[in-house]
Amino acid sequence: MTDSTAKTRQIFIVSDGTAITAETLAHSIMTQFPDLRYHQTRIPFVNTVEKAIDTARRINAVEKEEGTRPIIFTTFVEPDIMRSFNELVSGHIIDLFRKFVGPLETELGMKSAHSIGQTHKIRDDEKYNRRIAAIDYTLTHDDGQTNRGLDEADVILVGVSRSGKTPTSLFLAMQFGIKVANYPLIPEDFDRGALPDALLPLRSKLFGLSISPERLSEIRNERRPGSRYASLANCEKEIADAENLMRREGIRWLNSTTKSIEEISATIMSELGLDKRKA
Amino acid sequence: MTDSTAKTRQIFIVSDGTAITAETLAHSIMTQFPDLRYHQTRIPFVNTVEKAIDTARRINAVEKEEGTRPIIFTTFVEPDIMRSFNELVSGHIIDLFRKFVGPLETELGMKSAHSIGQTHKIRDDEKYNRRIAAIDYTLTHDDGQTNRGLDEADVILVGVSRSGKTPTSLFLAMQFGIKVANYPLIPEDFDRGALPDALLPLRSKLFGLSISPERLSEIRNERRPGSRYASLANCEKEIADAENLMRREGIRWLNSTTKSIEEISATIMSELGLDKRKA
Repeated sequence: MTDSTAKTRQIFIVSDGTAITAETLAHSIMTQFPDLRYHQTRIPFVNTVEKAIDTARRINAVEKEEGTRPIIFTTFVEPDIMRSFNELVSGHIIDLFRKFVGPLETELGMKSAHSIGQTHKIRDDEKYNRRIAAIDYTLTHDDGQTNRGLDEADVILVGVSRSGKTPTSLFLAMQFGIKVANYPLIPEDFDRGALPDALLPLRSKLFGLSISPERLSEIRNERRPGSRYASLANCEKEIADAENLMRREGIRWLNSTTKSIEEISATIMSELGLDKRKA
Repeated sequence: MTDSTAKTRQIFIVSDGTAITAETLAHSIMTQFPDLRYHQTRIPFVNTVEKAIDTARRINAVEKEEGTRPIIFTTFVEPDIMRSFNELVSGHIIDLFRKFVGPLETELGMKSAHSIGQTHKIRDDEKYNRRIAAIDYTLTHDDGQTNRGLDEADVILVGVSRSGKTPTSLFLAMQFGIKVANYPLIPEDFDRGALPDALLPLRSKLFGLSISPERLSEIRNERRPGSRYASLANCEKEIADAENLMRREGIRWLNSTTKSIEEISATIMSELGLDKRKA
């Protein structure tokens, strides 16, 4: 990033599936090399030997053109496709999948699905339905839109406007299939010095998001530039009031200022003891 | 899952970060063993040596109680924490992270951040802001709510009600930070035999979702049981009309019936050429 003479490395993420998880993990691994300049291409659905050969040739052509060896992350489930790809491609291969299956066969004393010729599993409809229901619920219960069915929520997020409630709610619903409602804390609540009535019987499900006043002001200014709503003074007051209210009501909360949506979500899951799940 | 006498394996996913990516990858790897009965626990934020020791002891206690060796997926960034954990814990360890960093140092001819004692990176604010903006845009442009700013969309999904447009839109916004609008195709459009006017100038951004009438009827019956809207006959007609319209208008589409949200999203990204991104 700093040395303009350094060549850009090509990173490929190749999979017979979506390659989305592999891309995220590859990104985490590559952040260990902050000075590396690289360009990342995800190549999903390489699910036939023909596509594997085409993809390998395409990557080899890039290598020839650029003159640097590509880094290739792979997550092939199908051994034949993986072999065809590996035999032909030139580059540093990081296998995020097959490498672990062999040792696991030994550890578990059982053959993997592909060792015994089993075909791909079809979609897990139960999980799909649970995610869709959670997303529906979360959209319906975004921003305190309705109190109806609020007791069905697994988690109810509270916090001032633009503290990160909506993206966090949606991530939790999408990733974990849990039903999240979120409820804004507004100046009327602070004046009254109490939580909205609808939340009182659901205290155990509440989790608060706070944020630094500077960052909140920045975010609000994106939306309503120069408004009183976005002013630092107003943000400072709202945050102080919200934190006082949460402290008084015994609501757990975290400060979202420097956290990613994933980190905020994982912290909430962990604090509320939702990390254990049956497979 | 089938043999009730088989012991349930304990799977742990342990990380100094959120362990979310590791959990997803672990799940993909474990689906290679469809006959294994297991119970999965994610343990995030093990980010001190003390926590590593506590976690190792906790896992060892479970092993003793259950009498089977746990499978432990790890993604420690910090070598000291990893070492403390690995020395103490008993189980089959699958290291999804550090194992690849050493060989990459050799390949790239550079030291990783932790080898040279660099501290953790702070949050990537630009990426965070892009995701938040994309989620905001997508929520505002869900279900054809407004035509204002429709031309700012990276993708516009079309399809009949409950064909999967909203979850797909939100996943694309959240995962890839792209702005997605979605627009329902309704009986009025089929009667007129044309796309809604607002979409005509944006044809290159359109992507269609279709679904089997049986599955659509099932999904709609969840929401409005026994309605004409949910009846198989009506679903068959709407799907046939929508597919005819998309065919006539030259809109690419996919059938979402057996696909996960990730697969639908990855297919759209791939079809629209959005897989290349700079890091």
